[in-house]
Amino acid sequence: MDYLADLISVARGVAPAELVLRNAQVLNLFNGALESTSVAIHRGVVAGLGKYSGLSEIDLKGSVVVPGFIDSHTHIESTLLRPEELARVLVSHGTTTLIAEPHEIANVTGRAGLEYLTETSAGLPIDIFFMAPSSVPSTSPELETNGALLDLGAVKELLNEPSYIGLGEVMDYPKVIAGESGILDKIRSAKGRSIDGHCPGLTGFDLNAYLAAGPSTDHEATELKEAMEKISRGVELILRQSSVSKDFDRLVPLVNYITARRCLLATDDRTAIDLETEGGIDMLLRMAIEREIDPRLAVQMVTLNPAEHYGLIDRGSVSPGKIADLVILEDLTSVYIRMVFKGGLPIYDEGKLIIDVEAYNPPEAVLNTVRVSGVKPADFEIAGEDGAYRVIGYRPGLILTDTLIEPFHAEKGRIPSDLDRDILHISVINRYAKDVNVSNGLLNGFGLKRGAIASSVSHDAHNIAVAGVDSVSMSTAVNAVIKSGGGMSAALDDAVLAELPLEIAGLMSLAPYPDVILGMRGLREAAAYLGTELEDPFIALSFMTLAVVPSLKITDKGLVDVPRGKLVDLFIGREIKRAA
Amino acid sequence: MDYLADLISVARGVAPAELVLRNAQVLNLFNGALESTSVAIHRGVVAGLGKYSGLSEIDLKGSVVVPGFIDSHTHIESTLLRPEELARVLVSHGTTTLIAEPHEIANVTGRAGLEYLTETSAGLPIDIFFMAPSSVPSTSPELETNGALLDLGAVKELLNEPSYIGLGEVMDYPKVIAGESGILDKIRSAKGRSIDGHCPGLTGFDLNAYLAAGPSTDHEATELKEAMEKISRGVELILRQSSVSKDFDRLVPLVNYITARRCLLATDDRTAIDLETEGGIDMLLRMAIEREIDPRLAVQMVTLNPAEHYGLIDRGSVSPGKIADLVILEDLTSVYIRMVFKGGLPIYDEGKLIIDVEAYNPPEAVLNTVRVSGVKPADFEIAGEDGAYRVIGYRPGLILTDTLIEPFHAEKGRIPSDLDRDILHISVINRYAKDVNVSNGLLNGFGLKRGAIASSVSHDAHNIAVAGVDSVSMSTAVNAVIKSGGGMSAALDDAVLAELPLEIAGLMSLAPYPDVILGMRGLREAAAYLGTELEDPFIALSFMTLAVVPSLKITDKGLVDVPRGKLVDLFIGREIKRAA
Repeated sequence: MDYLADLISVARGVAPAELVLRNAQVLNLFNGALESTSVAIHRGVVAGLGKYSGLSEIDLKGSVVVPGFIDSHTHIESTLLRPEELARVLVSHGTTTLIAEPHEIANVTGRAGLEYLTETSAGLPIDIFFMAPSSVPSTSPELETNGALLDLGAVKELLNEPSYIGLGEVMDYPKVIAGESGILDKIRSAKGRSIDGHCPGLTGFDLNAYLAAGPSTDHEATELKEAMEKISRGVELILRQSSVSKDFDRLVPLVNYITARRCLLATDDRTAIDLETEGGIDMLLRMAIEREIDPRLAVQMVTLNPAEHYGLIDRGSVSPGKIADLVILEDLTSVYIRMVFKGGLPIYDEGKLIIDVEAYNPPEAVLNTVRVSGVKPADFEIAGEDGAYRVIGYRPGLILTDTLIEPFHAEKGRIPSDLDRDILHISVINRYAKDVNVSNGLLNGFGLKRGAIASSVSHDAHNIAVAGVDSVSMSTAVNAVIKSGGGMSAALDDAVLAELPLEIAGLMSLAPYPDVILGMRGLREAAAYLGTELEDPFIALSFMTLAVVPSLKITDKGLVDVPRGKLVDLFIGREIKRAA
Repeated sequence: MDYLADLISVARGVAPAELVLRNAQVLNLFNGALESTSVAIHRGVVAGLGKYSGLSEIDLKGSVVVPGFIDSHTHIESTLLRPEELARVLVSHGTTTLIAEPHEIANVTGRAGLEYLTETSAGLPIDIFFMAPSSVPSTSPELETNGALLDLGAVKELLNEPSYIGLGEVMDYPKVIAGESGILDKIRSAKGRSIDGHCPGLTGFDLNAYLAAGPSTDHEATELKEAMEKISRGVELILRQSSVSKDFDRLVPLVNYITARRCLLATDDRTAIDLETEGGIDMLLRMAIEREIDPRLAVQMVTLNPAEHYGLIDRGSVSPGKIADLVILEDLTSVYIRMVFKGGLPIYDEGKLIIDVEAYNPPEAVLNTVRVSGVKPADFEIAGEDGAYRVIGYRPGLILTDTLIEPFHAEKGRIPSDLDRDILHISVINRYAKDVNVSNGLLNGFGLKRGAIASSVSHDAHNIAVAGVDSVSMSTAVNAVIKSGGGMSAALDDAVLAELPLEIAGLMSLAPYPDVILGMRGLREAAAYLGTELEDPFIALSFMTLAVVPSLKITDKGLVDVPRGKLVDLFIGREIKRAA
């Protein structure tokens, strides 16, 4: 029978629904009422609310029904999980729709990785929509080597694919407000679609200019005042709580009955451990309600608002014709999730995933992306003389770094690490070429007392980054990553203490999520054994290479002075002086 | 210079704006604040808010700035004005964007009339977006003759045109909830676009079914309870105040901080007289504020809400990058309009239109659409014998009619009108064929004591309808309409008392709007002289032919029993009995 005609006859009560949820209390996001009713579900959508009968019925015993959660801005790769495993985690946290920006895998593999993600996502029990990456590479081939370029033509092609609903975070806001044609052309190509912004700290005239150019969301506001200014200028404000940047509590005071409709919630970069233990969007919803946001507004922020903003008009509410993505809550205080329905099918019930998620075999193009041959300790030694050297100053919890100037005495013509000043060696190895190309630098603030940690997750070019006390440990750690075809490792001398292979583009694991979480825990414990007090030095390391966030970073090409957008030498001179 | 780069440099304050509005109080729809600032306008859009300087500056002296008003649902044809003249009226009332459903002209001329409207609209100082008519003809060729058919293919083609933003009001809700494939196919063709609904009185399971099928708005709710149920089911509720149906005051109690975002305001069918004297959307905004709706919510309902619902993402707020459609108000209490800007250009200033609106010459295809040759008195005589006859029962202020059964005595083999019972003759003449085809009926409730009134505006087929006391006056009135190529007239015996030619498709006048208003006044006065106390019997007459609204109507094919969807005889039988 014709789909619509069938749905209509069920909605009219002429034919029975496939499923009826009885004794429901539906949180009505349109009039704010908690409505005692039944929900008729047919052909994957809500046919209607009212006294329906169904071929199958479930008594919800007064539980609260809200729409499936929509995570407004995420990076799948940052979880370290392949999409199938990520879906398994998210389902139990009520997320049924993910808006993902896949620039990480695009930086490594270009279109092949994007195709892998869209194809894998097609078979999942959650819906993943993609934003076309606008900034691949994030800098230029002069500053770093990455794996692929997404030019204007590629962006236009992606925007024509059904999985892509808009343009991904326009990160290089200095280029936008400088009026550079490259990024403006990409923005123009997305005219009429959602264009995600990314403009940390931008205010005043510069904010106006950035918004006038086209981006309409921002998830980088970290201060209340900044966020309030952004919302006043029409920004669809995404309040974020990632593993790296925990902004929600600082921003939540701006949510009220007028502003709430412009607010969305997102997890951005959140690791498997954090998702599994603390939660995802469900955690944010819980936090919002704990902070005394009207639960009706809070639920709107994770359902109706993102659906409307991103043009996902088939979802976002429990009403006739909308996809039956439903979360069944114990109540609106605890936000304890009893059940989750996706497209009318129960997929999670009282703590248990009740569907199979079939694994999708990644194509060759996203495997074996680490092409560099093995390294040796000598690759990590810094030849030098006595004098002043630039040191990357890591600040706990921040992506932004300081530029430190420190004196060093050469030992046998080499510059050693210095535990007294907490200065390690940090190196980046180009993973994309077989020949070994290494750049070496100095890093303060990581706290390792011995050994080394390495990772092929290093934003955004995702070469292999390693930080360590001695060259042997660094070499061991990097060779472990290379041998795994990408991953993370911790090493001491010639022993690998812990490792987590990330076979998919060197970013995501092939393993089931519990194994990935165990692997991450093992890495953290090994790093702690090596002396650091950082909770997750691997995440910290992965951002020491991000040459679009100030001030001093390191890539495979060398040290980058980010504000000046150019490479600088490690060695400053024989005179020791402090940085300007 | 590149448009975006230029705009950005102005927004950054590097280059001066074309125009700066100083001393503005901008009603910020995002955070609810009344913000004292300047508005920089460049290249037709708002570059930014803040301390800008411009090549030209206007001191607003503390006036309130709100976005240009958006009328969410209108029929241009019902104003009787051609688009150029309508624009002149609307500009002075702050409407800068119109969402129009052109099924009236489509019923007369098909695609040619639609092309005429889109082409005319392209040159106006307001923006008109169209909804593709879903129901042309509104019934079937068995029940009435209209001028054109818009089939599925035509609807699909319209939806591909840039002026068309969605599917127009899906009026035949019984067919939708019966699952008829014709209308469902049209709905399917608009998947992902806005689909306007039209479902007077629909509730419960039937409402669920209608919404599950796809329509997402409704402007036909006339009772508070009905409107509240609709909003609870996700309907984008359009509160209407037309010339015919004045619903706003009954519905406005449902507007609150949760529901307001689902509410829009519209004028639907509003004549030139009402627009000019009472206003359009500005009147509705004023009414909302008088009824103590928070002005911020009230303004959202006529700006941000329709912009978001209909995907007009380039407008709806005073913020960077949005079209500089602005209304300058004395304050938020009187809503007195001082100035109006369209795309950054002042178009109205202190009571005066300050732009020229160029007239567009209508093509032949929309002129001379009245093809019937002249009529004679004998055409309107009802041959019959003594017995019971069906009479259309008009109810003041309603489109819905009663089915009356009344006894008549034949005079010389003819059934006469009967002033004692206020029963006139009513006839409909097929305007599309040269040969005269007339159907004759009886009408109660119009109150004419002598003479006749006629109109080529008669929903939805727009044949010529005439109501009168005697056949000579009816013939005179109809011949006046025919001679004008369409229009409205009032006649007594062989004298035309008043007429208003509507040369464009027999629906809209070629004259300037003040002349049309004078013409309408003349018609009303003539009708009053003929004895009726109805304020506008021409509008009333135009709906006596609308065979989709119950219960008894008349078309060129005869009397239509609307609920049963079939033609019925005027004569019931020799036995006089009341209707079932």
